[in-house]
Amino acid sequence: MPRPVIGFLTDFGADSAAAICRAVILSIANDAHVVDITHGVRMYAIRDGAYLLRAALEWFPIGVHLAVVDPGVGTERLPIAVRTQRGDILVGPDNGLLMPACERLGGLVEARALENRELMLPATSSTFHGRDVFAPIAAHLAAGTPFEAVGSVVPIDRLVALHFPEPRVGAGVLETEAIYVDSFGNVRLSARPADLARAVGPAADTDAATAADDAHAAGVRPGTVLRVELPRDSRIVEPVPWARTFGEIPEGSPLLYGDSSGDVAFGVNRGDAAARYGVASGDRVVIRVR
Amino acid sequence: MPRPVIGFLTDFGADSAAAICRAVILSIANDAHVVDITHGVRMYAIRDGAYLLRAALEWFPIGVHLAVVDPGVGTERLPIAVRTQRGDILVGPDNGLLMPACERLGGLVEARALENRELMLPATSSTFHGRDVFAPIAAHLAAGTPFEAVGSVVPIDRLVALHFPEPRVGAGVLETEAIYVDSFGNVRLSARPADLARAVGPAADTDAATAADDAHAAGVRPGTVLRVELPRDSRIVEPVPWARTFGEIPEGSPLLYGDSSGDVAFGVNRGDAAARYGVASGDRVVIRVR
Amino acid sequence: MPRPVIGFLTDFGADSAAAICRAVILSIANDAHVVDITHGVRMYAIRDGAYLLRAALEWFPIGVHLAVVDPGVGTERLPIAVRTQRGDILVGPDNGLLMPACERLGGLVEARALENRELMLPATSSTFHGRDVFAPIAAHLAAGTPFEAVGSVVPIDRLVALHFPEPRVGAGVLETEAIYVDSFGNVRLSARPADLARAVGPAADTDAATAADDAHAAGVRPGTVLRVELPRDSRIVEPVPWARTFGEIPEGSPLLYGDSSGDVAFGVNRGDAAARYGVASGDRVVIRVR
Repeated sequence: MPRPVIGFLTDFGADSAAAICRAVILSIANDAHVVDITHGVRMYAIRDGAYLLRAALEWFPIGVHLAVVDPGVGTERLPIAVRTQRGDILVGPDNGLLMPACERLGGLVEARALENRELMLPATSSTFHGRDVFAPIAAHLAAGTPFEAVGSVVPIDRLVALHFPEPRVGAGVLETEAIYVDSFGNVRLSARPADLARAVGPAADTDAATAADDAHAAGVRPGTVLRVELPRDSRIVEPVPWARTFGEIPEGSPLLYGDSSGDVAFGVNRGDAAARYGVASGDRVVIRVR
Repeated sequence: MPRPVIGFLTDFGADSAAAICRAVILSIANDAHVVDITHGVRMYAIRDGAYLLRAALEWFPIGVHLAVVDPGVGTERLPIAVRTQRGDILVGPDNGLLMPACERLGGLVEARALENRELMLPATSSTFHGRDVFAPIAAHLAAGTPFEAVGSVVPIDRLVALHFPEPRVGAGVLETEAIYVDSFGNVRLSARPADLARAVGPAADTDAATAADDAHAAGVRPGTVLRVELPRDSRIVEPVPWARTFGEIPEGSPLLYGDSSGDVAFGVNRGDAAARYGVASGDRVVIRVR
Repeated sequence: MPRPVIGFLTDFGADSAAAICRAVILSIANDAHVVDITHGVRMYAIRDGAYLLRAALEWFPIGVHLAVVDPGVGTERLPIAVRTQRGDILVGPDNGLLMPACERLGGLVEARALENRELMLPATSSTFHGRDVFAPIAAHLAAGTPFEAVGSVVPIDRLVALHFPEPRVGAGVLETEAIYVDSFGNVRLSARPADLARAVGPAADTDAATAADDAHAAGVRPGTVLRVELPRDSRIVEPVPWARTFGEIPEGSPLLYGDSSGDVAFGVNRGDAAARYGVASGDRVVIRVR
């Protein structure tokens, strides 16, 4: 029996709150590996948390995972567990946080409300459901409690939705949105390299070997020169080459690339693109052939 | 045999010092879970460390725990291990750091000086007792070495004391102190909701079911409107409702609530109360009926 | 069979990148302890990473360790695994990052290029070799795959070198370099207390007991008063006593001491020496008898 691996993401920051949840989990599922995805999600930033959870979980073994970015703790928002097509169970608040990850893991197949008091801590506070509700239920599930035991079914269409926008692909142009700024200042966009290839033309020299070598970046010819428009500030950045690696680009110069999550990203080699160009999560971003 | 869970708290920050201690622990107690409570305690802030350790350990399984906030490393201060009524052993410096946690875990029943060189690393430096003394002794204890083996008994009344102040309860007024500012800017006070209820009047509608649901916040009627006086700056904040959850309060408004550690706390919904009202740990705080 | 302990160091920061690597490792080596040395290395700072890795690994059990500070990811730089005299295997980029740690672990005895695709993730991106190449290969090695399986031998003299400078010892003077500034602001120097003792005269009263008690600090007489010259800013700091512990020095005063890694360091008791005196990694530092 492999030891269960529980991915764990919150906005709890540097205090001991995440550690307390981890202690609760190990009290119940003593053999688990609790893997902290991050506890540095911007406070209450459900969208950032959803992005990071989606980006992380596909690399985890199939298992039970726990995410808490929960500005509505103690209000009417439902505590839930959801099962994915891949076989994972995700535990957290019903505020959209878990949804993009479910999509990435094959889709959400069943949701249940967390109702079974026997799977929670004996006393549940109104401000720390991470410790009192979510962590113990995730631990019980990881230790073998069946999914059905947590509570009654919630119809999927009653759950709070959270979708990252689909990119709009035109002739020579792709319109999308910044969905996350990472700790290097790279701006992650809601678009795949294949979307950009449809907009700006595919790489003529893409062959099977390249695709296998570099699945995420496949599709756009390396060296294709683009321009990036940032409508919020009416700012235009050009030229911006499409590159396979930061190393191909002079230090301090911008680039577009296929990031490690399989999305298109906008960065600066050894620099902070978001700070330099004033881009924030949620901003519209237009990429055009130059 | 469940794997031992070792809570671990320091002010070592982001360097590799905590990881080195963890490596030392796993070299000795290979099967242990080392749970980092936090290594972000403000440097040398024994009081902050004591608060965070107290708040965390009650949620841990009974076990051996390790705490190092140690401005006096290498001086005369004693390295100690202490046994609690609950059955835990806490390892760290004798500077008060371990004391509030011991109180919370049922009281301190025995203290011993760390003297047994065979349980330390072969060479002990004068600046890094975390690695050379505390971590290996905690690991040996977690691996089954008896408590008595670490060294000779120290009379409890010879240990350095650290008490958080008792609140003063009057008619319509509670006087206490800010004992910690968390990473959200919430100000944790040295008082329990039951103390506040004695000052401002109990919730008429408290019944057994509510108390069981929400043990920590029980005692004060939700919606009770209070005022918070901050004598250091002669600042008065009002009205401040007592709320069960942040969600009951408009964004940007202050509240008093029963925090997840079972104490009274002063916060701002989606805001930073400490920054806005200029409150620091150690400040006197007076709560009055309005 | 003890569970393998994998030291893990990167400059990935607070995002989920390190957690993703950890998840990949646990997918392959389910029983491993992954010990995060730090993910807070200054971005792209190979030298800082090399210093921290060297300082940490000697305290780890012999094992497989993973380090990724990799500004050249996706370029021609070689991914490598190296075997040390002590028996460790270190996995990371060939940019010097691993070299000082190898020296500290007895020397580098064999290096191999990471070429075996079967030990990597099925698709390897061009921007995240930590996840796709380094983590899975480290995990396979920790789970028992023989070192020889990773790829062909690379001659040691073809590897990118990184040496911290040897100190120059004269009569009453030691010239060296700041090689790292820790999170307390202490300036770690590339010199051993024994080097300083050769320059300024040994401690007359050093005896066997002291040496065993305090191996790292042995060699210089406590209380020896020195001066520290910082040529970059033509700054002179004096008097600077050699001390065994911070506690011997008044608050706010500078000291030289044998740090926990066995090097000479320049600090301020309860202060930030690097900030106060404007010292950065790489700066020349001269210590003179006063």
